[in-house]
Amino acid sequence: MFQLVILSNQQHIDLANLSLNSEQMGLPKSIPVAVQQCCLVGGKQAGSRLITLTVGDAVVRIVPTRGMAILDVIKNGSRFGWDSPVKEVVHPSFINQEAAGGLGWLDGFNEMVVRCGYQWSGHPGQDGDEFLTLHGRIQNTPADEVILEVEQTPPYRVTLRGRVDEKRFKFTNFELQTMLSLTPDEPYLTIEDTLTNKGSYAREYQAIYHNNFAQPILENGAQLHVPVSELSPFNDYAIAGLSDWNQMPAPTEGFDEMVFNIRPLSDEQGLSRALLHNAKGTCGIEVTYQTQTLPVLTIWKNTDTEEQGYVVGIEPGTSFAYNRSYQRELGLVPTIDAGESKQFYVRFGLFTQEKQVTESREHIEALQKMQSLKVFTKPLVKV
Amino acid sequence: MFQLVILSNQQHIDLANLSLNSEQMGLPKSIPVAVQQCCLVGGKQAGSRLITLTVGDAVVRIVPTRGMAILDVIKNGSRFGWDSPVKEVVHPSFINQEAAGGLGWLDGFNEMVVRCGYQWSGHPGQDGDEFLTLHGRIQNTPADEVILEVEQTPPYRVTLRGRVDEKRFKFTNFELQTMLSLTPDEPYLTIEDTLTNKGSYAREYQAIYHNNFAQPILENGAQLHVPVSELSPFNDYAIAGLSDWNQMPAPTEGFDEMVFNIRPLSDEQGLSRALLHNAKGTCGIEVTYQTQTLPVLTIWKNTDTEEQGYVVGIEPGTSFAYNRSYQRELGLVPTIDAGESKQFYVRFGLFTQEKQVTESREHIEALQKMQSLKVFTKPLVKV
Amino acid sequence: MFQLVILSNQQHIDLANLSLNSEQMGLPKSIPVAVQQCCLVGGKQAGSRLITLTVGDAVVRIVPTRGMAILDVIKNGSRFGWDSPVKEVVHPSFINQEAAGGLGWLDGFNEMVVRCGYQWSGHPGQDGDEFLTLHGRIQNTPADEVILEVEQTPPYRVTLRGRVDEKRFKFTNFELQTMLSLTPDEPYLTIEDTLTNKGSYAREYQAIYHNNFAQPILENGAQLHVPVSELSPFNDYAIAGLSDWNQMPAPTEGFDEMVFNIRPLSDEQGLSRALLHNAKGTCGIEVTYQTQTLPVLTIWKNTDTEEQGYVVGIEPGTSFAYNRSYQRELGLVPTIDAGESKQFYVRFGLFTQEKQVTESREHIEALQKMQSLKVFTKPLVKV
Repeated sequence: MFQLVILSNQQHIDLANLSLNSEQMGLPKSIPVAVQQCCLVGGKQAGSRLITLTVGDAVVRIVPTRGMAILDVIKNGSRFGWDSPVKEVVHPSFINQEAAGGLGWLDGFNEMVVRCGYQWSGHPGQDGDEFLTLHGRIQNTPADEVILEVEQTPPYRVTLRGRVDEKRFKFTNFELQTMLSLTPDEPYLTIEDTLTNKGSYAREYQAIYHNNFAQPILENGAQLHVPVSELSPFNDYAIAGLSDWNQMPAPTEGFDEMVFNIRPLSDEQGLSRALLHNAKGTCGIEVTYQTQTLPVLTIWKNTDTEEQGYVVGIEPGTSFAYNRSYQRELGLVPTIDAGESKQFYVRFGLFTQEKQVTESREHIEALQKMQSLKVFTKPLVKV
Repeated sequence: MFQLVILSNQQHIDLANLSLNSEQMGLPKSIPVAVQQCCLVGGKQAGSRLITLTVGDAVVRIVPTRGMAILDVIKNGSRFGWDSPVKEVVHPSFINQEAAGGLGWLDGFNEMVVRCGYQWSGHPGQDGDEFLTLHGRIQNTPADEVILEVEQTPPYRVTLRGRVDEKRFKFTNFELQTMLSLTPDEPYLTIEDTLTNKGSYAREYQAIYHNNFAQPILENGAQLHVPVSELSPFNDYAIAGLSDWNQMPAPTEGFDEMVFNIRPLSDEQGLSRALLHNAKGTCGIEVTYQTQTLPVLTIWKNTDTEEQGYVVGIEPGTSFAYNRSYQRELGLVPTIDAGESKQFYVRFGLFTQEKQVTESREHIEALQKMQSLKVFTKPLVKV
Repeated sequence: MFQLVILSNQQHIDLANLSLNSEQMGLPKSIPVAVQQCCLVGGKQAGSRLITLTVGDAVVRIVPTRGMAILDVIKNGSRFGWDSPVKEVVHPSFINQEAAGGLGWLDGFNEMVVRCGYQWSGHPGQDGDEFLTLHGRIQNTPADEVILEVEQTPPYRVTLRGRVDEKRFKFTNFELQTMLSLTPDEPYLTIEDTLTNKGSYAREYQAIYHNNFAQPILENGAQLHVPVSELSPFNDYAIAGLSDWNQMPAPTEGFDEMVFNIRPLSDEQGLSRALLHNAKGTCGIEVTYQTQTLPVLTIWKNTDTEEQGYVVGIEPGTSFAYNRSYQRELGLVPTIDAGESKQFYVRFGLFTQEKQVTESREHIEALQKMQSLKVFTKPLVKV
C-alpha cells in the first residue's frame, strides 16, 4: 500500500503543490493512476487547494479546503458536475454563512458533491433559540489529515481520506472522517463517511449529500428514475411539476427550481439508487445510497438557464431540505449518541455506456414493481 | 506593449513580491515608470497585497486584495488620500460586514478610492426581505486577473486592470472589470470600470465611488467647488451646515460628519467635476465623472479631529448614501439587464500647481453660471 | 539585550518558522532559554502561528494570531491549561463571532489565557443599539509587532510583546500592547498589558482575563482559595452551588457550568490573588492581579465531563461575565479617556511544589482574616 500524507496538523505536513505518477507510487507504469495537488490563486480562491486524482479514465477533482467536496469528475470524456455562476473554488475564509439571512453558503456553491450538515442541514431560519444557516457548516470547513492510499496490486484501489471537524465548545463535538475511493477498471466512485459524536451528550444531527449534475447528462428529454415509496412536492410551486417531475426540460428561463421530496424504496441490501440519464440513454449518473442512515431523497430540479446554473440535484439525506424546525414532526431529525458513529454510504455510477444505463434503469424498475408509488399532491409542511 | 500578469487564477500566476523598472518593461531608462508588489504581513494585513505604481512624479498604491482600491497617491510630493484610524491594509478574510448591525465594513476603511456596490451601496439596514450591509460587498472582495500594461511609446500610458466578482448562486452574477491608468506627463489618474451582469435576469444595482481626501488639501479654509443643480442635506444634522457646506473647517472636535446630496450639472460631454483645493488654492483634487451612469454626488464632510479621521469625501454615484430602500422613490436604483454592461468613468486631477486649480475652478464656475442652484432645506427622505 | 522582531508590518518582517537557542541569543549555553515559531497547518489552523518559549523548566506556547493568547504552559512536567473539545489553534479568518446568536467565539476557545475585551466583554446580546458578541473581539484579532527580548545577564528575563489593534472607523480606536515575561529561576509568568484609546473621545471599555485550568491541578478535591469581600451566584443555577463554590468535583456529567461573581480583597500593594490547588496541595495555579483596573473576579466552574471540557476559570476583570447592558448599574463598565492608557497586571504562579502552594494559601487566608465574607444568595442581576 502506497500512502501519502498530503496534509496533517499532527505531523506538520502540508505538501502544497505536488504531482506523482503511478511509478512514483510504486505501481506498474501501465496503470493509469496519478495524483496532483494545486494551490489555487486569484480572488476568493486564495488559500484553496485542489486535488486531482486520475484513476483509469476518470479524473476526479477534490477540494480539501471545502470539506473534501468533489468539484467534478471527467470520466471517459464526459463531465459529471455542473456549471454554477460561482466559478471560483471559494476558500471558507471568504464565506459568511450568516450573510443575507443565512444564505452566504451560496457564495461558494458549485461542486458535484456538496455535504450539508452535520449539526443541521436544510433551509435557513430560526429553530427555537437557534438561527440555522443554509445547509450547515461542514462544506465551509477545511479538512485536516488528508491522506491518499493506493493499493499496489489489482484492483489498484485509490482512496482519499480527510477529517473535517465541526466543533463549538459546549455545543458540538463532531468529527467527520470522509473517504472516497475508486479503481481504474470500475465506473464507480464511492463515498463512505463516518460521523462521530466525540462529546458526552447525544445530539441531533442531519446530513444531505447534495449531488449535482448537468450537461451532457442533463438536457431536454433527460430522465430520472427513482424507486419511490412516497413522492411529494416541496412547496406549492412544485405542485404544478408533479406530473412530469422526472422528465427534464431544456434550460428554461424563469423556471427557477422545483424540489420534490421522496421516500425511496431500497433493495435487500438496504440500498436505493437513483438514475439520471440523457435523452438517448447513452450516459447517466447513478446515485446509490444506504437508506439506513440516508432514508430520504430530495430531487432538486433547477432547470433554469445555463447562465443561472442549469442543474439537477440527486440528494440522499437524513432529512429533506426544509429548515430543521419542520422536520422533527416528519421523523427526520435523528440523534447521535455520545461516542456513537454513523456511516454514510453513497456510490456514484459514472455511466458513459448505454448498457450501464439500461441495467441501472432495469434494476430501479424492478424495485418499483414491488411497491406502488404514493403521491401526495400537497407539501408535507407549510413553509 | 509590455504586459505583466500579476495574478491570474486562469493562468495559475501569483507573482507575490515583485519589482520592475522601466528598462525591465522595455521602456527607455529615462522614463520614470516602475512597478512593485509587496505581500503585506502583520495583524489583519496577513494575505494582503499592495501594488505600487510609479508613473512620472506620481506614486500610486493599489490594493488588489480589496477590490483594486487605491490606497493613496503621492504626486509631486503631495499626498492624495487620508489618515484613517484604521492603519492596516485589512484583508477581507478579517472583515465581517454583518458585524455591528452591518457596519463591519468600517473595520477596513482607509483608502483614497473605495468602491461601494454593486448589488447595493449606502447605509446598512433592511430593504424588504434583504438586510443590506454598509456600502455593499465589492470592497472586501479580492481581485483576480490583475494585469499591468505599459505602452512602450509616448505617452507611455500605464494601465492596471483587475477583475472583481460579486456572485451568489441564484442572487447575483456580477463581474466588475476595473481599470486605472495614468501617464508620466499628465496630472490625471483615470478609472474606467465596467460592470457586467452575467446572469439571465435584470438586477438592480448601485455604485458609489467613495473618494476621500485630507491634508495637505483639506485644511481650514479649503474650498469645494461643485456645479450644482440641486443641493440638500442628507439628514437633520446637516441642515445647520447648508450655509457653508463647501467651506472646510480645521479639524473640529465633535463635528462628526455632515453629508450633502447633490444633483450636479454636467458639460456637453456629459461630464461633471468637483474640485477641493487648499486655502491658498495651490493644490487640489479634481474629481471628474460621467453623469450618465453616476448621476449624483455625495459630499461627505467628516471634518472631525485628525485622530478620528479628518477627511472629505467627493463621491459620485448612481445613488446617495441612504439605504437602498429609500432610493427607489428618488429614482436612484437603476437596473442592469441580463448580459448588459455599465461603464463608470472617474478621473482624478491631482493638482499641485495653482494654475491647474484655477482652471478647474473656472471651468466649474462657468458650468454653474448656466443654471441656478436649488437648495432644499430639508432632507429628501426621513431616515 | 537580545531583541528579535518576529512579526512587523512596519519593518516587513515575518519570520515564519524559526528556532533559536540560548547561544544564538547571546546567552551562556547553560541558560535554558529557547524560542521557536511554527506555522501551523491543517483544517482551521491554516494561517496560525505558534510561538514556543522555553525558559528554565517552563515551556510556554503563545498564539500571536489569536491576540497573543497563551495556549498553555508546561512547568516542571505539569501542564497549566486545559483540554477543550476544540483541538485546533483556530485562525481568526475561520471565526464568525456573530454566528449562533453571537457565540461564534466558542469555535476557537481552548487556551489557558484568553483575553476578553476591550470594547466589551461578557455574554452576547443587545446593549441598546449595539449587538455584542461573546467576550469581544480581541481574541480573534491577529497581533502585529511581535517582538522577543531576552536579557543577556541574570535573571535573563524573557519578554514577548505583541500589539493587537481593535479599530473600527468612527467607533473604536484601541491599541493593546501585550507583554508577557518570565525568568528561568522563578515560578512566575507575568502579563502586563496596556490598553490605549488612540481616538479623540472617551469610550467605555471592558476586560476579562479568562484564565483556564484543568488537570493535574483540577481534580476531585481540588480547592480554590480567594480572598472575598462579596460573593454572589451568577444566575439561579449557581445558587445551589454556593455552599461548596470553592470545592472542585471530579468530572461530572450534566454539571455544565456554575459561575460565581466575586468582589475580592486586595493587599496593601493593591494586589489580590486566587489559588487553585490539587487535592493534596502539591501543585497549583496562583493568579495575582491588580485590582485597580481588574476589580472583580469571575470563577467559572465548568466541571463537566472531560470530553466536554473539564475546566475552571479564574478570571479577573473590569466586569463580570454578564452582557454589558447589565453592568453599568453595577459600576463595572469603566471609561477610558481620549489618549488614556490602562494597565492590566496578571501574574501566574505556576506552582509545582507543596511549599509554594502553602505559602500562597496562607497569604490568602491572612487577607481574608481582615474582612468577613459577604454572601449574596441571589444573583446581582436578573438575566
